[in-house]
Amino acid sequence: MKTDLTARFAAFLSPDEILAEAPELLTDQRKRFVSAPDVILKPKSVESVQAVMRYCTQHHIPVIPQGGNTGLCGAAVAEGGVLLNLSRLNRIRAVSTADNSITVEAGAVLQQVQEAAAAADRLFPLSLASEGSCQIGGNIACNAGGLNVLRYGTMRDLVLGLEVVLPDGSLISHLQPLHKNTTGYDLRHLFIGSEGTLGVITAATLKLFARPKTRATAWVGLPDIEAAVGLLSLVQGHFAERLESFELVSRFALDLSAAFSRLQKPVDAEWHVLLELSDALPHDGLPDMLAEFLYRHGFENSVLTQSEQERSDLWTLREHISASQRSLGTSIKHDIAVPVSRVAAFVGACAPALQAAFPGIEIVCFGHLGDGSLHYNTFLPHVLSNDAYAYEDKINTIVYEHILAQGGTIAAEHGIGIIKNHWLPRVRSPEEIALMKAVKAQLDPHGIMNPGKLLPA
Amino acid sequence: MKTDLTARFAAFLSPDEILAEAPELLTDQRKRFVSAPDVILKPKSVESVQAVMRYCTQHHIPVIPQGGNTGLCGAAVAEGGVLLNLSRLNRIRAVSTADNSITVEAGAVLQQVQEAAAAADRLFPLSLASEGSCQIGGNIACNAGGLNVLRYGTMRDLVLGLEVVLPDGSLISHLQPLHKNTTGYDLRHLFIGSEGTLGVITAATLKLFARPKTRATAWVGLPDIEAAVGLLSLVQGHFAERLESFELVSRFALDLSAAFSRLQKPVDAEWHVLLELSDALPHDGLPDMLAEFLYRHGFENSVLTQSEQERSDLWTLREHISASQRSLGTSIKHDIAVPVSRVAAFVGACAPALQAAFPGIEIVCFGHLGDGSLHYNTFLPHVLSNDAYAYEDKINTIVYEHILAQGGTIAAEHGIGIIKNHWLPRVRSPEEIALMKAVKAQLDPHGIMNPGKLLPA
Repeated sequence: MKTDLTARFAAFLSPDEILAEAPELLTDQRKRFVSAPDVILKPKSVESVQAVMRYCTQHHIPVIPQGGNTGLCGAAVAEGGVLLNLSRLNRIRAVSTADNSITVEAGAVLQQVQEAAAAADRLFPLSLASEGSCQIGGNIACNAGGLNVLRYGTMRDLVLGLEVVLPDGSLISHLQPLHKNTTGYDLRHLFIGSEGTLGVITAATLKLFARPKTRATAWVGLPDIEAAVGLLSLVQGHFAERLESFELVSRFALDLSAAFSRLQKPVDAEWHVLLELSDALPHDGLPDMLAEFLYRHGFENSVLTQSEQERSDLWTLREHISASQRSLGTSIKHDIAVPVSRVAAFVGACAPALQAAFPGIEIVCFGHLGDGSLHYNTFLPHVLSNDAYAYEDKINTIVYEHILAQGGTIAAEHGIGIIKNHWLPRVRSPEEIALMKAVKAQLDPHGIMNPGKLLPA
Repeated sequence: MKTDLTARFAAFLSPDEILAEAPELLTDQRKRFVSAPDVILKPKSVESVQAVMRYCTQHHIPVIPQGGNTGLCGAAVAEGGVLLNLSRLNRIRAVSTADNSITVEAGAVLQQVQEAAAAADRLFPLSLASEGSCQIGGNIACNAGGLNVLRYGTMRDLVLGLEVVLPDGSLISHLQPLHKNTTGYDLRHLFIGSEGTLGVITAATLKLFARPKTRATAWVGLPDIEAAVGLLSLVQGHFAERLESFELVSRFALDLSAAFSRLQKPVDAEWHVLLELSDALPHDGLPDMLAEFLYRHGFENSVLTQSEQERSDLWTLREHISASQRSLGTSIKHDIAVPVSRVAAFVGACAPALQAAFPGIEIVCFGHLGDGSLHYNTFLPHVLSNDAYAYEDKINTIVYEHILAQGGTIAAEHGIGIIKNHWLPRVRSPEEIALMKAVKAQLDPHGIMNPGKLLPA
């Protein structure tokens, strides 16, 4: 920490808003990057955030906003400057069942928001692996996705309004739960997914939904991805918005997770789908309807859960994939999406290309097939973990070229951060990048907001 | 038409892309504004649009994009320049049930898109009064709303990707049906709702849904708006996404429409709600469930439809309100929204204020209560129609001040156009308007795109 900078912030912040040390904030979740900020601030109020931003604009000091520090792309890593941790701005400001909305501060943990909604007999649907520690501000800054985007959309779709402190310290606040509002260019969507490069999100008004009262959960074994896509289309056409999750798991990914979890594999197959229906109405017949539907369409290599324990075991198999693959060493991860109709073509072409370039490479492929979104993790068994990143560019190039060939995206739900921004010119045109830079220059003329993140150099 | 300009476009367009006259394109739907363009172009291809834009940028010629000419705020009115009508770009380019998406050109009529989706056994949900003539490009440019936003969102929520010709003639095209994609600032949402001021939308990829197979429709009489909001909250908590429409109608609006439609009023009450549930699954019991639910909660002054004819009659009563009120003369219309929980407070305060300022003023109040979105139309019985607009500013000021006091918006689903842009500084901060103008300046440095629209002077 720089003593002089600490002293200067002490002039207008309270002592406990300035941290002497906070090692848990400095190493990122994947233990890949270590921050070295000049000072760590944990403001207790929006006014403090405004005061920090005014000061930093005046003195051209970089500011790196941080939430739960669960990001996977290094967007909250600080090299110098102010690491601005929002954890203390964590109030639930309001819940309204009439408006189906909840207004929360940026530092509220996702699970805390889910629980506040449940206490009002409503659902806040965003759900993802780190929900016990990730924060709403980070979810918005990265446009988080997760397990039920199929039904409820990504974080972008769940935000009714934002409160943002701009780099100059001024406040934009639109927290009224308006479901229709068309008054000029929609700036809210610029901040969503901007990874802290345009301002500091301090609060948001989010959509709430009715809580599901009925669930039906099935695990289906399939010979290939084409069959999984066919099943998805049939289920969507028939059960419509009841389909909440449609997760794809490869044989290899399931083998790893079953061993790690000490659970039986539900069925034997090359590819697997975990699908779940839900309904806000009590509907005892839903599991039987799903069973009959699968049988009628020939998906007989499947199991329906009969109890909450069975359901929990299936979800454990899905959720333990990430942890179980760590035994393989360091992975080069890909957070990608293609149109659903192209997933099979992508997987069919990419795996042989990787194996040709890196004989023996192992691929853990799983993800949210309902959104065309895959976690495509690669491991080089003969390479020591610390050396794996040396191969990252070459592996990425093969994977991303195959993604682009299928009209896909190199960043589905984890953001860009510092590990993908050099790829942005491949997926955005020069006119688009020029427009992004103009937006950035207008709001942040001194370039102090999260420098080096998201935008290409 | 300016002969010289016509000749200059004839150098690179085919003769039938240049119209000698087109009176139906020159008067707006409300017969309030008359366009006087220098030339009317109807390009047959995206390449023609690009050529027009390149030429107009080079020669600083204003371009006014136009779709079905059904806008209500004058956004497609031309004073000089090129009136660029997109009607001929009306192909359905692709439908994919696997991706739940449809790719259509800007000039496709909304109803044509609904029909193309239905032919693939899917639903394109946007539905509004002018669906037989309004076009997708205009729906996107104005972020159209309508009857089932409650369930499916506004046009903004339905757009997966856009193809846009920028003012300099370059093309941005993102038409792949990606359900997750977070690669830099979301520029798509800048174009949606930008009313033709940033570029020319030429095509879009839109979301499709399963088609409803079951409906239940009820008309409920209520003593006050508070009771209607209470009913909404109960229905949403219980029936969840099955609730597709929740329309509010005042006694006065219903009286007008019933007389005009030669239909009986379903029930007698101060306020009325037309609500409709739908379900993609066949579900014979749904109408009975709704009836039982209304009875159990004490909403006994209600009717459930027993046949398609009865349902159609109820919707006719709702849809004829606009036509029936024309007998009152010229209306000063307001397309407004407040949080659902504030609708009653707004209506309760605004009507007395208007009556105090304009004794005898008549108010036709109806709209989409489920979204907090109202059509609030006012008539001065003792003023000749042609003179009504002289009172517009004073009436608007009263209505909009009451809207702002309730945290509402002055533009819910019709846009800003040329009739509301002087109000924008009341609902957007100086920083926001500066950012909008910076975006505009970056994309359209010569200010040729739909000048004078949307942004304040």
